[in-house]
Amino acid sequence: MDGDSVKLIGFWASPPVLRVKWALALKGIEYQYVEEDLSNKSDMLLNYNPVYKKVPVLVHQGKPLAESLLILEYIDETWKQNPLLPHSPYERAHARFWSKFVDDKCVPTVIAAFSKGGEEQQKAAEEARENLKMLEVGLEGKRFFGGDKIGFVDIAIGWLPYWIGIVEEIVGMNLIDADSMPKLNSWFHAFLDIPIIKECMPPHDKLLNHTKAFLQVLTSSSSP
Amino acid sequence: MDGDSVKLIGFWASPPVLRVKWALALKGIEYQYVEEDLSNKSDMLLNYNPVYKKVPVLVHQGKPLAESLLILEYIDETWKQNPLLPHSPYERAHARFWSKFVDDKCVPTVIAAFSKGGEEQQKAAEEARENLKMLEVGLEGKRFFGGDKIGFVDIAIGWLPYWIGIVEEIVGMNLIDADSMPKLNSWFHAFLDIPIIKECMPPHDKLLNHTKAFLQVLTSSSSP
Repeated sequence: MDGDSVKLIGFWASPPVLRVKWALALKGIEYQYVEEDLSNKSDMLLNYNPVYKKVPVLVHQGKPLAESLLILEYIDETWKQNPLLPHSPYERAHARFWSKFVDDKCVPTVIAAFSKGGEEQQKAAEEARENLKMLEVGLEGKRFFGGDKIGFVDIAIGWLPYWIGIVEEIVGMNLIDADSMPKLNSWFHAFLDIPIIKECMPPHDKLLNHTKAFLQVLTSSSSP
Repeated sequence: MDGDSVKLIGFWASPPVLRVKWALALKGIEYQYVEEDLSNKSDMLLNYNPVYKKVPVLVHQGKPLAESLLILEYIDETWKQNPLLPHSPYERAHARFWSKFVDDKCVPTVIAAFSKGGEEQQKAAEEARENLKMLEVGLEGKRFFGGDKIGFVDIAIGWLPYWIGIVEEIVGMNLIDADSMPKLNSWFHAFLDIPIIKECMPPHDKLLNHTKAFLQVLTSSSSP
């Protein structure tokens, strides 16, 4: 294995980093994990990702890669065992579509739903629910987005219901419920039951405290 | 060839549609082109792309695909001749990185530079220039982003200098110049010299008039 030449620069509470941890775990790749202090970014991070200055960065044989969904593609192309993307070009396009949809459409509306106030919040929550419901299309007739077992989409978006659950606890608002999104709800519970997935998830209480602090910054910066 | 089972739903002035036209031309794929009226979207478009309701949509053997960069990947995986993405996973990741960078970072700052006023405009123009300069890294030691011949990145971002040139004419502002971005400037001229590329470009005067109208809508909607 190439294990000792793989390094992941991450932050424990970062969903994009979690994607990469899951992908490496599913592929059985050993790696060195380097926790980054995001309040005082290291020269290593700034050198490896000068464009975005963000985690995750995967360093393989000395070469850095940024952007979590692109790192997943790289991992899948480099280590062929346990494929993440399906085989057919059409199914691959769909997997990429839903993964991108979460980043481009779901996440911004979910963040707005949790950080805005009044009418704006209601509108954002409605949009967020509509976007989340759309994901159910990708689960039609399947246990996981990947089919019988988890794949690219599952690890690209599997963090979302966990994070939403945490924020729901804090702000007392409900975005995902079993009645209106039964497929998404069943999928997430089946996903979280997989030992390799569960093991990488940040601990509930630690994430709750971290998210409370994050939301405070978010809501104070979005106030007029 | 599968030519007669390929349909592209597009709009003549849309850069994402142009990407797909270039990819199909480079692969030598025959297809039916359907021009969409974006002010009165067809049921066909809404059925094929219910999530974004946008062009381009590529329909292959009756199955629809949306999102231009994902369509390029699909085209490259389905028709293997004249590969768009490089062979090595690391180079592929880089190609995807720069293509995504243009959509996520360059385009928003370029639009802001052309549509905001006063200090905001100056700031946006500065950011846009910095982002465009970063693209020169991807051209280090190469004629095209794809190396000796054009590839994925070239057709993903090749529309940008043409559109910027058009808007520069309208608003009298300079974002790309040969002195500060020599590599980008040479690349674009070499790119536009390729007959297959030039043939797909919208005519200058028609695009100029269209863009004037577009900018009017943009600046009036961004006024307080």
